[in-house]
Amino acid sequence: MPGTNKDCATCIIARCREIATHTEVPGEITRRFLTPPMHAVHALLHQWMEAAGMTVHTDAIGNLRGLWLSPVANAPRLVIGSHLDTVPNAGAFDGILGVVMGITIVEELRERQPPFSIEVIGFSEEEGVRFSKAFLGSLAVAGKLDPETLQRTDQDGVSIAEAIYNYGLDPANLPAAVLSRDAFAYLEFHIEQGPILESEGISLGIVEALVGQTRMQLLFEGHANHAGTTPMHLRHDAMAAAAEFVVAVEAYATAHEGLVATVGKLEASPGVGNVIAGRVKTSLDIRHADDNTRRAAVDALTQIAKTAATRRGVTLTLRTEMEQSAVPLDPHLTTLLHRAAAQAGYPSRRMTSGAGHDAMILAPTIPSTMLFLRSPGGLSHHPDEAVLPQDVEAALATAMEFLALLSPELSDDKTKDSHA
Amino acid sequence: MPGTNKDCATCIIARCREIATHTEVPGEITRRFLTPPMHAVHALLHQWMEAAGMTVHTDAIGNLRGLWLSPVANAPRLVIGSHLDTVPNAGAFDGILGVVMGITIVEELRERQPPFSIEVIGFSEEEGVRFSKAFLGSLAVAGKLDPETLQRTDQDGVSIAEAIYNYGLDPANLPAAVLSRDAFAYLEFHIEQGPILESEGISLGIVEALVGQTRMQLLFEGHANHAGTTPMHLRHDAMAAAAEFVVAVEAYATAHEGLVATVGKLEASPGVGNVIAGRVKTSLDIRHADDNTRRAAVDALTQIAKTAATRRGVTLTLRTEMEQSAVPLDPHLTTLLHRAAAQAGYPSRRMTSGAGHDAMILAPTIPSTMLFLRSPGGLSHHPDEAVLPQDVEAALATAMEFLALLSPELSDDKTKDSHA
Repeated sequence: MPGTNKDCATCIIARCREIATHTEVPGEITRRFLTPPMHAVHALLHQWMEAAGMTVHTDAIGNLRGLWLSPVANAPRLVIGSHLDTVPNAGAFDGILGVVMGITIVEELRERQPPFSIEVIGFSEEEGVRFSKAFLGSLAVAGKLDPETLQRTDQDGVSIAEAIYNYGLDPANLPAAVLSRDAFAYLEFHIEQGPILESEGISLGIVEALVGQTRMQLLFEGHANHAGTTPMHLRHDAMAAAAEFVVAVEAYATAHEGLVATVGKLEASPGVGNVIAGRVKTSLDIRHADDNTRRAAVDALTQIAKTAATRRGVTLTLRTEMEQSAVPLDPHLTTLLHRAAAQAGYPSRRMTSGAGHDAMILAPTIPSTMLFLRSPGGLSHHPDEAVLPQDVEAALATAMEFLALLSPELSDDKTKDSHA
Repeated sequence: MPGTNKDCATCIIARCREIATHTEVPGEITRRFLTPPMHAVHALLHQWMEAAGMTVHTDAIGNLRGLWLSPVANAPRLVIGSHLDTVPNAGAFDGILGVVMGITIVEELRERQPPFSIEVIGFSEEEGVRFSKAFLGSLAVAGKLDPETLQRTDQDGVSIAEAIYNYGLDPANLPAAVLSRDAFAYLEFHIEQGPILESEGISLGIVEALVGQTRMQLLFEGHANHAGTTPMHLRHDAMAAAAEFVVAVEAYATAHEGLVATVGKLEASPGVGNVIAGRVKTSLDIRHADDNTRRAAVDALTQIAKTAATRRGVTLTLRTEMEQSAVPLDPHLTTLLHRAAAQAGYPSRRMTSGAGHDAMILAPTIPSTMLFLRSPGGLSHHPDEAVLPQDVEAALATAMEFLALLSPELSDDKTKDSHA
């Protein structure tokens, strides 16, 4: 019923905006892991979840978890979730949209008595801002939050374990946060945070995989010298070497389908106009859905950097700061989601996610799928971040078709099980 | 007499090192215009000058001026000088060497009763550190220090006029600082501050001209975007545009004889590894002895920057911060200096100065010439800045030959004058 979906879409956006009023910094949206405004967010979601017929609790890492139980006996559990925390000065939809969508789906679906229960999880931490460590919420649910991590401290010297205590929770209960064994699938809605869907005029993206990623730091060391008195052939210009590398990064990535490679940071020392830069530090961020393609890019680009440095008598030091394999999502669920969008009457495109999401952490543990909603202007991590009501409507309609497609499969499984 | 010159060279270096102990910052050499340690420097030089038979005073801009009067009646005046101030954390020779050389020349020469007087000037300000305005000392001597300049303030809000008062001087006396009308030539010794002489194994450089210079700021403005979710073809990467420009600057200058062009500053915003840079600000410093060559380089390189920006949907804003024409030194004096080096038995090479010097300010007013001494390691503006004793010896021997070559010319002039 389009009328209903339209109302829901408006309501979903309004709920996200209401959540956004709870912030550490008045006038902007900043809500880090287990900071005071998270209590209000939990209270609000708790209220909406209970009204939708869910039983609600907060687990030991601070994830808010609402469970709607199917009236069908021994029904398996579908998990729908995304995260509650934000980057500093964020928008109103990154993360929270997926949680509010989950609650709305329960509100819509429960009358139909589907053959599965639904657990909606608002993950406490995904952005990695407070403790420079991302995915704390989903790692705990996946059972992969190692105890050492709890000793990490924030900028005020507070450890994760202390933050948990201070919030009124007990890290000793972390084992109970692990995903229930009856969970059979994970579904996450998220804004695209990129310009692809908008550039193609499409509401929805079906995520096939989350890209693998390499982050490096390159240090070019030449000699700082007088810009006026040092002829070109006697220079060891770290800036020129680094610039040649930056240009090559862009050219290489442009020439290789699906690859993104970025130098976003370049720090020159001494960094003044009349002195040849003696030292330049750059970042390198390379992502691709195929790990071999990514590794080949890293090899090729570091070789180019070495050549650019050597030719100028500049030394190069490389440091790998992050290396993360690509995570494929469940092919069957992804195909089902694609079909659901088509049946709901919305064109969608298969795509890879260039950013990390909670689904990346859960996918190795439970069959997972993700639906992207178009990001107007490609904007994200920005106060102007938005989502269009018609795209929320499309996502909701697709979700309902998806769940309808899931239901007979589950009934079949149950039949099979009972025959076994 | 090589023995004497060798002793003098050792003494000159020792005197420079003694001056270097007077600093604003203990443990390093930092001596800005009219700061307290300048009093001790003046006192020391005053003492050496008086011992050499000179009458000494400090002019209204803080230049220390010692005059040795020739016993020949109505003898014209040779001016020898360089500066007393330093950059922060400087070496012991930039500037001061030329002043100490001048005093030593008087000590050596006065017994020979040459047909010219010698004024040694220790310019109070050349580096432009304290008031972000260079050449205050020589501008006053050239009569080109405009009154508005005196209102400039340092980082503590003290104006140049106040700094002069605080030092015990009176800006009202600035007109008396202007070069005497009987001055016929200006000679400046200075370390090269570059690697050319060392790379060719030569002690001395004869400066034919000081390069013209253009300094610009370029602002590339694209769009900051997520490094993972923004495909290459939808980027407006300010860093990539700037990097293409940096590479072109190096290539263009390398291909054009005598041109130096440098991007020493590059500031990226937001400047983090996983965000495409939305905004990059770079410097451009271009120098050449021929103004047309320099202007053509500015045109070509700004055009390249525009193309690199436009191709990426990045806007470019240009700002010219400094534009200074090349300053030729006096061809006759320069030829004489070259001949003097040869007669003293030292190979020298004609060259242009890539840096500005007090001679640049005086050259339009009085025939001027400069002698460069090799800079070990090309180092300058650095605590390890040095000068080799044998190069000081060579410079001193060259100076004595130069003054010997000057003397008959002056006698001829005087003969001519007396016949007129």
